[in-house]
Amino acid sequence: MTQKTSIPKGTRDFSPLEMAKRNYIFDTIKEVYALYGFQQIETPALETLQTLMGKYGDEGDKLLFKVLNSGDYMSKLTDEELQERNSLRLASRLCEKGLRYDLTVPFARYVVMHLDELQLPFKRYQIQPVWRADRPQKGRYREFYQCDADVVGSNSLLNEVELMQIVDTVFTRFKIRVLIKINNRKILSGIAEVIGEADKIVDITVAIDKLDKIGIDNVNAELRAVGISERAIEKLQPIILLEGTNREKLSTIAEVLASSETGLKGVEETRYIFNMLEKAGLNNEIQLDLTLARGLNYYTGAIFEVKALDTPMGSITGGGRYDDLTGIFGMPGLSGVGISFGADRIYDVLNTLDLYPKESVKGTKLLFINFGEKETEYCMPIVDAARKEGISTEIYPDKVKMKKQMSYANAKNIPFVVLAGDNEIAENKVTLKDMKTGEQQILTVQDMIRKILE
Amino acid sequence: MTQKTSIPKGTRDFSPLEMAKRNYIFDTIKEVYALYGFQQIETPALETLQTLMGKYGDEGDKLLFKVLNSGDYMSKLTDEELQERNSLRLASRLCEKGLRYDLTVPFARYVVMHLDELQLPFKRYQIQPVWRADRPQKGRYREFYQCDADVVGSNSLLNEVELMQIVDTVFTRFKIRVLIKINNRKILSGIAEVIGEADKIVDITVAIDKLDKIGIDNVNAELRAVGISERAIEKLQPIILLEGTNREKLSTIAEVLASSETGLKGVEETRYIFNMLEKAGLNNEIQLDLTLARGLNYYTGAIFEVKALDTPMGSITGGGRYDDLTGIFGMPGLSGVGISFGADRIYDVLNTLDLYPKESVKGTKLLFINFGEKETEYCMPIVDAARKEGISTEIYPDKVKMKKQMSYANAKNIPFVVLAGDNEIAENKVTLKDMKTGEQQILTVQDMIRKILE
Repeated sequence: MTQKTSIPKGTRDFSPLEMAKRNYIFDTIKEVYALYGFQQIETPALETLQTLMGKYGDEGDKLLFKVLNSGDYMSKLTDEELQERNSLRLASRLCEKGLRYDLTVPFARYVVMHLDELQLPFKRYQIQPVWRADRPQKGRYREFYQCDADVVGSNSLLNEVELMQIVDTVFTRFKIRVLIKINNRKILSGIAEVIGEADKIVDITVAIDKLDKIGIDNVNAELRAVGISERAIEKLQPIILLEGTNREKLSTIAEVLASSETGLKGVEETRYIFNMLEKAGLNNEIQLDLTLARGLNYYTGAIFEVKALDTPMGSITGGGRYDDLTGIFGMPGLSGVGISFGADRIYDVLNTLDLYPKESVKGTKLLFINFGEKETEYCMPIVDAARKEGISTEIYPDKVKMKKQMSYANAKNIPFVVLAGDNEIAENKVTLKDMKTGEQQILTVQDMIRKILE
Repeated sequence: MTQKTSIPKGTRDFSPLEMAKRNYIFDTIKEVYALYGFQQIETPALETLQTLMGKYGDEGDKLLFKVLNSGDYMSKLTDEELQERNSLRLASRLCEKGLRYDLTVPFARYVVMHLDELQLPFKRYQIQPVWRADRPQKGRYREFYQCDADVVGSNSLLNEVELMQIVDTVFTRFKIRVLIKINNRKILSGIAEVIGEADKIVDITVAIDKLDKIGIDNVNAELRAVGISERAIEKLQPIILLEGTNREKLSTIAEVLASSETGLKGVEETRYIFNMLEKAGLNNEIQLDLTLARGLNYYTGAIFEVKALDTPMGSITGGGRYDDLTGIFGMPGLSGVGISFGADRIYDVLNTLDLYPKESVKGTKLLFINFGEKETEYCMPIVDAARKEGISTEIYPDKVKMKKQMSYANAKNIPFVVLAGDNEIAENKVTLKDMKTGEQQILTVQDMIRKILE
């Protein structure tokens, strides 16, 4: 029974080289999270649809992967339900579980279910795949990893400060030069308020968000199109086109927002963050960007986004403050702030800029050529000795032509090869070949190990 | 909208402490796999049902989690299909994807799809969750991790030898004393052959497999019940009750199996494995156990299983040789041999025997008490300096009562706390409190770091 083999569209296999690079990314992020006292959790891939549905809007509900109930699910449907053939409505009768869509909703569910074991503030990180039935396209997958860190149960802005330090540390370790953009939802609300269009806050930020791409004239046209008054648009100009240092920008904004309590609160928050970051000292620039909007319906305070400076690529990290993480699960008033590193995009940036350290993609270091049973018996304890020294070592399993074994070593980029035949056995030594230089030496086992560890 | 929160039955959340322990297990296994030249791959959680169906028997097909198609799946069903209400048959019309059931079938699929990029023999390891719609019970989950290593494309018995060395190394690192049991499918076939019951090989091994649990008399009764002749049962007795060293057992078996070519091949293979392992030297005992059967329809050569010696627990690792991994995907003749560590059971054994190293569950090492904005400003560069030395450090984000901050440190088992108020700022020092001894010292930043790193 022969079958055509394939994998579902939008999913990927990861080869050993890809895995090594991905592990380098995840390990670096994990290490930094841990350095800041964040603790790892994992939640199941499967969540109840009750947990998942209604959290990501109508569009999100459609993009959830739903898992068919086991057993005789068909017998539970009425004739009417079947005749109606309403796929969307039937889904919730055929399925009670789904694959997680992000890590935030499962985290909120986790906090509610485990609150009595948790020490608040709870600093958790989570690196796991998520699934979305999106139309697959270049750079967009149906199964992909998210790398989130969130602090829940603390209103302190020090959390925002630390998340910015984490971003700075992670990208410094990756050697990716970045610009960190920060804004505050309260400033945006204040702006809408003082120009007299408080109820159009979403329209305004959607338009402003496009400044980089479409320019000021088109932004203004779009503002007009959604019904913002000419007076309000005029008032918006100095805000949209704001220039200068972060300190200068904040001063200007504070003047504009003088009549808005919310707006001034946003300015004050942002000032605190900049001030503390100055004390800590960042390697990368952080910039107040009033055109930064990000999912407004969700965030309530600081919002941030990270761009790579040396290669064109969308946002590679983002996050912000949300004031009611667990309200949907019946526990209101628990504030959170979080970031999410975009692993797939960081992967591409590291590839484009050729920034993977050699050490991160290393594999087997030493291969023993197989000359037959007697020679293998001789080599066994030597192989063992090399491994005891931490040297990743293989012995070619089959006695095949030397050429084939050597091409295996080359294909796997193995830097050292041991040859041990009658002569070496008689002398109780091995011949070590350096695959880069081609140089061969007859050595004792100790000297061989020393040379490889050099 | 308040909702009751729960997770699907048979799934689990992993807390920070559980994650630390699980990471210790996975990291140890990964490190040893890499030491032996195995390379990591990952495959998607979602596979096509074409890949998954028919690989695990009828029972397995039922236990696959199937994912409902997106879009208007109902419009594609005929009236007849709906009226029939056949849940099993409709599943393959409603779904074209499923969650992987193990790591072996996805690996076989991977090998076939990526053969032209692979260097054979291909030594791969894979640590990922799998899903089974089994009835959940103690120790059996619907979502659990497997940790597999397989070598494909080599018939050499050196692969079996290396897998035994890997098992030995892993459990030595865990400090779990184990007994490695080994058998060979060809020996079992030979036995069935020489007692004249070749076609009853499955029944025989199923019965023999129970010797430990039900004793020799009940095994014989079961053999009778499945129609094995008295003469054959008599012939089986010395084999079932075989005692002595591995060498002695093999000699006896070789005599019994003198007329079976297959049987003698199995003896020869097992001798080779024991001989090479003697050269390499194992820390744990390896024992020939003719009552070891394991999924016979699958394996074709050596089979092995690992038991913990110091606590009662089923098999904690197992594996074997299978001669046709990829035949089902149209590529016959590719032999493989593999092992799988049972992470959940190893987790329990390490817990029961209290063998987790302290280092593996360590979290934050240093907490700065928050006395307010001015003090925080003073602390920021000191916190940064500690982190630069690799010390996992937190600063309590909110200015709350000292007692609350201290109880946070206690709850998180943080060993050192820094207090820095007016006095310390004036002296440009910090007070370091050792939470274990209660001792407090006023130190320079350098001395503080030195003391923590001691």
